[in-house]
Amino acid sequence: MSRVTDVLNSQHIELPSWAFANSGTRFKVFPQAGVPRDPYEKVADAAQVHKYTGVAPTVALHIPWDKTDDYADLARYAKDQGVALGTINSNVFQDNDYMLGSVTNPDQQIRRKATEHLLECVDIMDQTGSRDLKLWFSDGINYPGQDDIRERQDRLAEALKTVYERLGDHQRMLLEYKLFEPAFYATDVPDWGTAYAHTLALGERAVVCVDTGHHAPGTNIEMIVAVLLRAGKLGAFDFNSRFYADDDLMVGAADPFQLFRILFEVLRGGGLEADTEIAFMLDQCHNIEPKIPGQIRSVMNVQEATAKALLVDRDALAAAQKAGDVLGANAVFMDAYNTDVRPLLADLRADKGLDPDPMAAYQRSGYAEQIVKDRVGGTQAGWGA
Amino acid sequence: MSRVTDVLNSQHIELPSWAFANSGTRFKVFPQAGVPRDPYEKVADAAQVHKYTGVAPTVALHIPWDKTDDYADLARYAKDQGVALGTINSNVFQDNDYMLGSVTNPDQQIRRKATEHLLECVDIMDQTGSRDLKLWFSDGINYPGQDDIRERQDRLAEALKTVYERLGDHQRMLLEYKLFEPAFYATDVPDWGTAYAHTLALGERAVVCVDTGHHAPGTNIEMIVAVLLRAGKLGAFDFNSRFYADDDLMVGAADPFQLFRILFEVLRGGGLEADTEIAFMLDQCHNIEPKIPGQIRSVMNVQEATAKALLVDRDALAAAQKAGDVLGANAVFMDAYNTDVRPLLADLRADKGLDPDPMAAYQRSGYAEQIVKDRVGGTQAGWGA
Amino acid sequence: MSRVTDVLNSQHIELPSWAFANSGTRFKVFPQAGVPRDPYEKVADAAQVHKYTGVAPTVALHIPWDKTDDYADLARYAKDQGVALGTINSNVFQDNDYMLGSVTNPDQQIRRKATEHLLECVDIMDQTGSRDLKLWFSDGINYPGQDDIRERQDRLAEALKTVYERLGDHQRMLLEYKLFEPAFYATDVPDWGTAYAHTLALGERAVVCVDTGHHAPGTNIEMIVAVLLRAGKLGAFDFNSRFYADDDLMVGAADPFQLFRILFEVLRGGGLEADTEIAFMLDQCHNIEPKIPGQIRSVMNVQEATAKALLVDRDALAAAQKAGDVLGANAVFMDAYNTDVRPLLADLRADKGLDPDPMAAYQRSGYAEQIVKDRVGGTQAGWGA
Amino acid sequence: MSRVTDVLNSQHIELPSWAFANSGTRFKVFPQAGVPRDPYEKVADAAQVHKYTGVAPTVALHIPWDKTDDYADLARYAKDQGVALGTINSNVFQDNDYMLGSVTNPDQQIRRKATEHLLECVDIMDQTGSRDLKLWFSDGINYPGQDDIRERQDRLAEALKTVYERLGDHQRMLLEYKLFEPAFYATDVPDWGTAYAHTLALGERAVVCVDTGHHAPGTNIEMIVAVLLRAGKLGAFDFNSRFYADDDLMVGAADPFQLFRILFEVLRGGGLEADTEIAFMLDQCHNIEPKIPGQIRSVMNVQEATAKALLVDRDALAAAQKAGDVLGANAVFMDAYNTDVRPLLADLRADKGLDPDPMAAYQRSGYAEQIVKDRVGGTQAGWGA
Repeated sequence: MSRVTDVLNSQHIELPSWAFANSGTRFKVFPQAGVPRDPYEKVADAAQVHKYTGVAPTVALHIPWDKTDDYADLARYAKDQGVALGTINSNVFQDNDYMLGSVTNPDQQIRRKATEHLLECVDIMDQTGSRDLKLWFSDGINYPGQDDIRERQDRLAEALKTVYERLGDHQRMLLEYKLFEPAFYATDVPDWGTAYAHTLALGERAVVCVDTGHHAPGTNIEMIVAVLLRAGKLGAFDFNSRFYADDDLMVGAADPFQLFRILFEVLRGGGLEADTEIAFMLDQCHNIEPKIPGQIRSVMNVQEATAKALLVDRDALAAAQKAGDVLGANAVFMDAYNTDVRPLLADLRADKGLDPDPMAAYQRSGYAEQIVKDRVGGTQAGWGA
Repeated sequence: MSRVTDVLNSQHIELPSWAFANSGTRFKVFPQAGVPRDPYEKVADAAQVHKYTGVAPTVALHIPWDKTDDYADLARYAKDQGVALGTINSNVFQDNDYMLGSVTNPDQQIRRKATEHLLECVDIMDQTGSRDLKLWFSDGINYPGQDDIRERQDRLAEALKTVYERLGDHQRMLLEYKLFEPAFYATDVPDWGTAYAHTLALGERAVVCVDTGHHAPGTNIEMIVAVLLRAGKLGAFDFNSRFYADDDLMVGAADPFQLFRILFEVLRGGGLEADTEIAFMLDQCHNIEPKIPGQIRSVMNVQEATAKALLVDRDALAAAQKAGDVLGANAVFMDAYNTDVRPLLADLRADKGLDPDPMAAYQRSGYAEQIVKDRVGGTQAGWGA
Repeated sequence: MSRVTDVLNSQHIELPSWAFANSGTRFKVFPQAGVPRDPYEKVADAAQVHKYTGVAPTVALHIPWDKTDDYADLARYAKDQGVALGTINSNVFQDNDYMLGSVTNPDQQIRRKATEHLLECVDIMDQTGSRDLKLWFSDGINYPGQDDIRERQDRLAEALKTVYERLGDHQRMLLEYKLFEPAFYATDVPDWGTAYAHTLALGERAVVCVDTGHHAPGTNIEMIVAVLLRAGKLGAFDFNSRFYADDDLMVGAADPFQLFRILFEVLRGGGLEADTEIAFMLDQCHNIEPKIPGQIRSVMNVQEATAKALLVDRDALAAAQKAGDVLGANAVFMDAYNTDVRPLLADLRADKGLDPDPMAAYQRSGYAEQIVKDRVGGTQAGWGA
Repeated sequence: MSRVTDVLNSQHIELPSWAFANSGTRFKVFPQAGVPRDPYEKVADAAQVHKYTGVAPTVALHIPWDKTDDYADLARYAKDQGVALGTINSNVFQDNDYMLGSVTNPDQQIRRKATEHLLECVDIMDQTGSRDLKLWFSDGINYPGQDDIRERQDRLAEALKTVYERLGDHQRMLLEYKLFEPAFYATDVPDWGTAYAHTLALGERAVVCVDTGHHAPGTNIEMIVAVLLRAGKLGAFDFNSRFYADDDLMVGAADPFQLFRILFEVLRGGGLEADTEIAFMLDQCHNIEPKIPGQIRSVMNVQEATAKALLVDRDALAAAQKAGDVLGANAVFMDAYNTDVRPLLADLRADKGLDPDPMAAYQRSGYAEQIVKDRVGGTQAGWGA
């Protein structure tokens, strides 16, 4: 069991600062009481998640949502709260100029503006000490013929190259793909293949980010994980879950068995080793559930899926697979999945001096009530605009 | 050809007032210059679409977006512009109270509030003289277990009954269904079957509204049209098009062949007769294209699909079908679809004294430039909040 | 716990005779050694599943695959093996005449032939004492225009009426729907709504059969279960699982969480009461796994999902739901799902005098080896033709 | 117009020999009268398609379905009929040994057997003078855990390498991908990205084959075309169409607008130049329609989509795209699509001395009746086994 607990103890899940802000759908953003009004308050909330789970020691920033004059100060504040700043996420989808695209816009001026923003994000990385720049582009078109989809690939490649060359030796670029939304006909980076092709052209420090909610219906995500790991190009996860499209629900909420399969393939491909370079991040929107507990639940769901993946009897599995024993191999696999790992994780937390039940501990803490009282006035953070 | 032109001349496509306002995705609403600031300006814009197409004489209202003190005055204004007020659309998705549902909310107070809004919409119908109340509920849940999906059906039925009983003898209730969004696990009216079951329980004046963008991938919409027409329960269309989810693109933009098949089935089922009670409405969002020309294009696309449906040689088709001639029957059908009906429609417009090219005529008119100049100050209309 | 064990002890899952025969895809049927060569051998194999699980006491027949001269004799044989004959499944998809449809064929002679077959199935029901006639129609068309989809509904309604009127007072008609395959453009009974509409028109003894693999991507099956139960029209399940289309995998293999949600909704709607009229049947194809153990695994998966559904703390759930506690309600629900119910089921089996591990017991029994030795010569059963 | 006619006159669409044989679904293969009984008769039927369309001068073979002792003789026969032999398609999915995979099977003996078959296909290419070897693998697994999906990638890579090294200097390997079927959980080459990664590792003469029916719902195929062309890795098309899964309907039958968009992107990327190396092949199954006319219709549908793509006013399109004129650019694009190109193609055929209406000419020819009379006895060709 020590291998299992070792991995679980060293697991590190990054939190997204924006998960603590208001979010919603195009129909309505439901504001919640106590929501942060600035990056400091977001970091404070994220620190709560780490305080009770013990495995979420970093917070990803989103620029310009988390723009601040003094990143060193924000980093110090984070440290005081027991966490650190992590990945820098760029945002080239909320300026009026980007209606027809950012780095793939037909207008060169706008492309330049977008690229400047990405370069600015690298500047910020230098200040925060972040290793990773995560790039998600909403770029695409809504109507056939609207723009030249081939040329947009060239424009994209050019912008990526400019940014890649600006990266420091220990910095990486994570390129994220997404099937659709907000572009409704053709998205410029629609699938892992396109992201992979671009990162290949750039070099070693460009890798792919898999958002578990960004695929076409029926896509086998663990296959993508296996293939990207084999190619040395799996850089990161944005974890969330979905029943339909990019629903951004709590990870593991919609299909816990899929999450288990994904984490098993990560394990199988070496991605849970101590020196893994895969960034495990959450990226979800808490439209209707309270934000901090929502993140705690997501973190716990990743932990549970990881524990189950670690419990698979790999020798028995390999033997059954080699023997062509379809039902036997599947049974070994399901045996791990069907195990209730919650007691194991509770023990692990207790061993670390944490409450075995993070949700209950957070709820007892009074933090939720406190922020509702404290955070009066100001503007609640949200998706900008 | 006179049958074809008769139907095309009598065709009536209703415009949605909200199509002229700003809209967008959860990522960004891109404001456009010249966008209306009140219901009057929306009606004025809608009248432009009718002016150039000649087949869009009514405008649907959305309450409370189009709330006004004096509906009679708004109706007079519409008449002066050459159009009339049409369907009343309720909105029970943008109040903070509706986070967990409106008429299906677990909280009875909120259910009552939502029902009161629906009843208020009927009051407005009495003032505007509208025949139809269109109900779309965003109600649903995001997580398994979040609420009792069976009980939510009972709550829904109760609210619908209350509203149905309030309707006047010549008023109808259109119940719309939608697979998902903004609810991401279970939507309370997710498919035509659920809408059909509720309208059956209510009575004759409750009918189903088919939004062409509200189905699961692979759904054969023309089958639904055929089955609902057979059951006497097809009340209306909300036309738009999609590649992925509820993309709300211009109708006919994503799959013109599908639009043709739908309109053929409407024709086949008697829905294009002079006394048809089917309401043909547009419901789309112009996120990146100019709004008035976007509506003109949609109207023209419906006209073209209708013209093609009318051109199907029904006798030849029936003969081939009866003979089991798979390729022959398909060829008759495709022959109509492959016909270029634009000259026919241009002639029809010329006969009515309209410009044969509505887009060019609108663009030459200077209206677009005028509204940009005139509509300065105030608050552009959008999706409320 | 007694309520849980009572329900689990009274649970009854029907086995499909054809699951023990060879099956496959259009690319290849892989024959397996020891496969039955007649209905008697199928019944014998089904009895093995019941012998080790104790909850599968009936076998559904498929006509003409299981046609025999003396159903009374087959029934006696079944009884000797410890099981009974169950639902009668019709087959109007494998005769050359049915290329363009059976009961919806444009040719009246063929429609009559198909209807005669259905009536013959009722005759067989009279002999076997079966309560249920299950109707699945492969009818549909491959190309737009190929046939009149509206008229096909009329033809279908006529055939169903003829058969319905022939049913005895205690006999039922189960109407199954399916999105697509083998029809690739329009299927005549494509969704639950269409099946529901037809059963409504027929009367009380016509009910809907939900095959868990027959839906469009993203369809929420538990909603359909809830709505059909509410309408008194849920007659039966054909259980299997899928990742893509109608994959016919072992039930619970692709998405065990979904199976749990479905069974919870059955429970919620009263479908697990002692007097339930819902027929719980398996319908899957063992293309690559051994057939008898495949059925045992499916039966156990249904049991496990049922046990988890029964473990949901309904009072706590209702309280959280009523309070609008999104995370709390979801947590109660997930708590049951995350429980390892295998020990509970093992105990239950032991109490009944069964081996706690049905798979191991079957494998030790030597039956698999015996049938390979015995069943030499003759023609292995398969999908007819 | 000369550019348009030049391209259309030089267009070359390859026919699949197996399209003239019986095919079907897992539910039923409906045999048709007059179906070929050997490769010679298939070639003769294919020659009919070329005779009336003038653009289908080659026939792809499928090994072992078209295995023969003397390929030189078959080639001579083809030449006599006015056509030539084309791509060689391997088949490693119909032997009993391949139940758990061919080149990715856990059993090394079976992997070797499968690889030997592929090498034999190259031997045949040497005899037929074929340029292309098309590889489609049905390999995959049905259940999570059944086999090691990562190791299967390694096995696949090894087999591909062995075969690639055997290719002559002017021979190519086309690697086809497919989302699912017959594997229902994980397919070893499920998407273009995986195929692309393998062909990259192999070298220049390994390229990707896009089957238009092999994608997840919602996939934008023209994006894949654009990206693969940009990478120099688009080797071939297998054309057919689908509403749901791999329906294998006549190309252009389900979504003619999509076919147009695909061909426009091919044109845009240089794939319709005289020296194009893209192989345009049909791959469809005529389950219910007569086979020769079905192929003629498919060929004509590709021609019509190509003609429309060629009619796009590229200068006007580029200008509108550059100006960010969403509706204008879309209008230019749709203008070409909405054009009825059938008269243009009829003229083109007349200029070549062909009948302007290939379907009518074939039907008048009496060939269909003749083969029904002649082909009596023997075994109709089908999907082997």
